[in-house]
Amino acid sequence: MTNPVLIEVLRGSIVESAHRGAVCVADADGGIVWETGDTERPVFPRSAVKAIQALPLVESGAADAYGFGQRELALACASHSGEAAHAELARAMLAKAGLDESALECGTQWPTNRAAADMLTRGGAKPCALHNNCSGKHSGFLCTCVHAGFDHHGYVGADHPEQEMVRSAMETVTEASHGPENRGTDGCSIPTYAVPLRNLARGFARMVSGNGLGPQRAKAAERLLKACMAEPFLVSGTGRADIALMEAAPGRIFAKTGAEGVYCAALPELGYGIALKCDDGATRASEAMIAAVLARMLAGDEGVAATLNTLANPVFSNWNGIDVASLRPTTAMHSEG
Amino acid sequence: MTNPVLIEVLRGSIVESAHRGAVCVADADGGIVWETGDTERPVFPRSAVKAIQALPLVESGAADAYGFGQRELALACASHSGEAAHAELARAMLAKAGLDESALECGTQWPTNRAAADMLTRGGAKPCALHNNCSGKHSGFLCTCVHAGFDHHGYVGADHPEQEMVRSAMETVTEASHGPENRGTDGCSIPTYAVPLRNLARGFARMVSGNGLGPQRAKAAERLLKACMAEPFLVSGTGRADIALMEAAPGRIFAKTGAEGVYCAALPELGYGIALKCDDGATRASEAMIAAVLARMLAGDEGVAATLNTLANPVFSNWNGIDVASLRPTTAMHSEG
Repeated sequence: MTNPVLIEVLRGSIVESAHRGAVCVADADGGIVWETGDTERPVFPRSAVKAIQALPLVESGAADAYGFGQRELALACASHSGEAAHAELARAMLAKAGLDESALECGTQWPTNRAAADMLTRGGAKPCALHNNCSGKHSGFLCTCVHAGFDHHGYVGADHPEQEMVRSAMETVTEASHGPENRGTDGCSIPTYAVPLRNLARGFARMVSGNGLGPQRAKAAERLLKACMAEPFLVSGTGRADIALMEAAPGRIFAKTGAEGVYCAALPELGYGIALKCDDGATRASEAMIAAVLARMLAGDEGVAATLNTLANPVFSNWNGIDVASLRPTTAMHSEG
Repeated sequence: MTNPVLIEVLRGSIVESAHRGAVCVADADGGIVWETGDTERPVFPRSAVKAIQALPLVESGAADAYGFGQRELALACASHSGEAAHAELARAMLAKAGLDESALECGTQWPTNRAAADMLTRGGAKPCALHNNCSGKHSGFLCTCVHAGFDHHGYVGADHPEQEMVRSAMETVTEASHGPENRGTDGCSIPTYAVPLRNLARGFARMVSGNGLGPQRAKAAERLLKACMAEPFLVSGTGRADIALMEAAPGRIFAKTGAEGVYCAALPELGYGIALKCDDGATRASEAMIAAVLARMLAGDEGVAATLNTLANPVFSNWNGIDVASLRPTTAMHSEG
């Protein structure tokens, strides 16, 4: 099936571009609350599932052994902007396990935050793996390895015990198989597995409600999602969508972006999990889509819904500060489904 | 109609994302050589039509009065990367008309070229309007104004005589009406008008063949396209697609990108004009689309087609330099049409 247009890009009053996609909202019992588009087609969730990938860090006891609080757990679930606070916290996490940035296998990335990149440039410094947007997740992986007594070298490999723990957590939570047949390699070199949006939405409903996870995993999931909601800056970075979404209703929205137009979210008060993908991989569209679907699900709270609807309808100005373009969710975002 | 998927994004062997679009190739008589998707739907051509917008600079005599050669004409048609050579040439063009960057109304933009931006940052300097990717076009507009005796203030406005000259050239070349009903504002604040891809493709066939333009305009069009083909760096910037496409067959391919997934091109030896738009506005996809259609049109030259096909199938590596993703034109790019 062809997915519907969910977001239109307007220049003046004319539609200039359009973004198709699919969205699934599931409840704590696995029921489909609302969906649109093909939610059975496998998609790579990329970084949107970092909170699930961080379960072994908590479940193994490593997080407690190293005294990690909400800040460290939030960073372990983050796609951060490489700002100084992000890089320093990743360094501190590694130090707890007796490691430094040389152990990171995520690769070097310039901070995506412009001011942070400029600060390095002005100082004549170069970025390192701590600035990689995934350094918190990788620091969590490394701490888990050291605590468990694994040789951490090669921890990004699909057959390394660390990635086997991560894969096992992903399979249990999403109830989707993760194997060589649906595997790709992510930007930070760990495996990513293509699974249907329905499984991802149901997975986040399990994460936020604890349903079907068993008491230990349910507690770990709750700790991780609460950490992210408490520290949205550490999950994301200055000016980014994850922060705006989670701050729209503090403690009531978990939201996490992933590359190539994926977004996952969870609503504790409703026990809902949400997963979506913009077909063409555009971040601008996935951000507007998740804001629109969150506004729809929280429509009962007019203030929160209004904030979210503003995020779903961003306006873009040109180099002279003149508003020239905007995004608009289509009627498909409001369909019966 | 729903446009076909023209480019797939692969992660490993799995399709991760997909880009839809429409393409039109027209010949010098206005005949359709090949097309796919809805080529009658109006699209904003954005910067892809800068060569047409530069016609008044040549036709008015301003280019000759100020002694502009191929370098200046190429920059007048450019969406450049704000590198030092671009900014300095724009400054020199303005100086010929007795102006400086304070006359530019395109707004300030950081160089899109990373090294150029870093050079400014390291020196504690800030960008100015000369670094705006459109500064060459605007310098051309300003030179035209001064030569014609217009008050240049407000030259970006739709009702200013400069923009009326530009609009008249666009209307004549594309044979599409340009009015308030199909007008938007571009990133550099000048008007942009949504017209069908068929009109754009036929327009570039006229530009490259001279057919139906009259001798003076045909000569101006030839001069501008030849300037761009001779100076692809000045039209574009280090490492960018316009350069790679035009250098694939020097003097035989004119290619110009536009924002929101538009590409226009022309093939002098065939008298063909080409216009395409990626529905979702993605540059990565429009670049692969134009490379694929150029490879198709120049299939008779195996070496050139091979180079273009490599550009149509780019491979992306991750932070560790591992190839993890790639683009692939679909069978729709090879359809009978």
